[in-house]
Amino acid sequence: MKSGTGRTFVEKTKHKFLEMSDQQKGLTQPPLVWPTQKVNPAITLPHPGKTPLNLVDLRQLITHRSSLREYSDKYLSLAELSYLLWCTQGVKLVYGNKVTLRTVPSAGARHAFETVLLINRVEDLVPGVYRYLPIEHQLEVVSTQPDLAGRFAAACLGQTMVMKCAVAFMWVAVPYRMTWRYGERGYRYLYLDAGHVCQNLYLASATIDAGTCAVGAFDDDAMNALLGLDESEAFVIYLAAVGKQPVA
Amino acid sequence: MKSGTGRTFVEKTKHKFLEMSDQQKGLTQPPLVWPTQKVNPAITLPHPGKTPLNLVDLRQLITHRSSLREYSDKYLSLAELSYLLWCTQGVKLVYGNKVTLRTVPSAGARHAFETVLLINRVEDLVPGVYRYLPIEHQLEVVSTQPDLAGRFAAACLGQTMVMKCAVAFMWVAVPYRMTWRYGERGYRYLYLDAGHVCQNLYLASATIDAGTCAVGAFDDDAMNALLGLDESEAFVIYLAAVGKQPVA
Repeated sequence: MKSGTGRTFVEKTKHKFLEMSDQQKGLTQPPLVWPTQKVNPAITLPHPGKTPLNLVDLRQLITHRSSLREYSDKYLSLAELSYLLWCTQGVKLVYGNKVTLRTVPSAGARHAFETVLLINRVEDLVPGVYRYLPIEHQLEVVSTQPDLAGRFAAACLGQTMVMKCAVAFMWVAVPYRMTWRYGERGYRYLYLDAGHVCQNLYLASATIDAGTCAVGAFDDDAMNALLGLDESEAFVIYLAAVGKQPVA
Repeated sequence: MKSGTGRTFVEKTKHKFLEMSDQQKGLTQPPLVWPTQKVNPAITLPHPGKTPLNLVDLRQLITHRSSLREYSDKYLSLAELSYLLWCTQGVKLVYGNKVTLRTVPSAGARHAFETVLLINRVEDLVPGVYRYLPIEHQLEVVSTQPDLAGRFAAACLGQTMVMKCAVAFMWVAVPYRMTWRYGERGYRYLYLDAGHVCQNLYLASATIDAGTCAVGAFDDDAMNALLGLDESEAFVIYLAAVGKQPVA
């Protein structure tokens, strides 16, 4: 155990081993977000405040949260999707192309994620893969070819909830946004930050009669290939399936 | 970048490289929690429901969350601390000494953390270091020697909020609880899970007129030494300072 991969990672990313970061060396900061493809017209999302919410007792919400793996066949509305995207990666402010302030905490406000969605059942959206444009609060179509859901479920080692859910959130880490400032220790922060994001999804889902199940077990190569990622630049770090509560 | 420590960790913890886990080999599951020291009598916490809470709009709560680094000198009540501990690591159910169900999601319900608190300003508690006993929902005194706060702040690279806050949460990862089932990939889940926990602390703090700031930058050796941890068995994975909002 002591010499395993995980232990080595924790050891080598100790603060005392930090080298001068690219930021300290004066290298240019990477872009805040992926560029838009502009192949298809962007889809404007409803304002995230448009979904009516009941007031909640946070203690009750947290106490009663559980992972939901079976869903009703109801659709999420586009306004509900907008709300979930806002709660997980919404951009509140952009400071001069250098920093985004978002609805979730991130080490040094690096916000090193892109959100890619597998849409199965969302009103007004053709099933397929979409990318969230957080600054514009819009969606961009990546692909609507058939049978994508089955391929993603296979890449998640056959976890069928990825097919059966209304939408699967796939968070892609763009590590250089983090390591530019924090070096190799930044990889710790990527995983910590992904946990922040997913927890908000758990709680926000619960306020719209939906539920979530996080997915940490997946075939990394297959998942990254499905999204066309060059692993030296970006990789899928975490996923979560969301769907409406089954009828009791 | 491509061959760095972080990239190597992500690569080597791919699902395809998983070896047979200790669970699959039939090895005994590690204990669910650290044993209690029983040197000092345990301190019973008020029921986590005892703190009065206003109902909240989760969207507003998430939207207005920000990291709080300056605090008023007000004390947290013991009931408020009880509530924060409940929201971050509270145990809802224990299944036959094998699994705990908690208020936060954890990969395979492994719940591989211990919560250690640096108490600076909590009513009815002498300042010092305490351990949370999640199954009993109690506290255990670890040390009340003077000047601990200064030493923890130093181990956090001089981040004085660790001294100035009302309480600092320190989450200790006990990796074998996770790797017993998931092998080295379990280290990913440790960081993801710590993110879930910290996000709940952010949101719960905001409901009691308090705020939080997560701390990911610290001197690992110094921090682990302060808590007397054998790094092959346990290490500090994440911290967060909590205090009341400063008077406007």
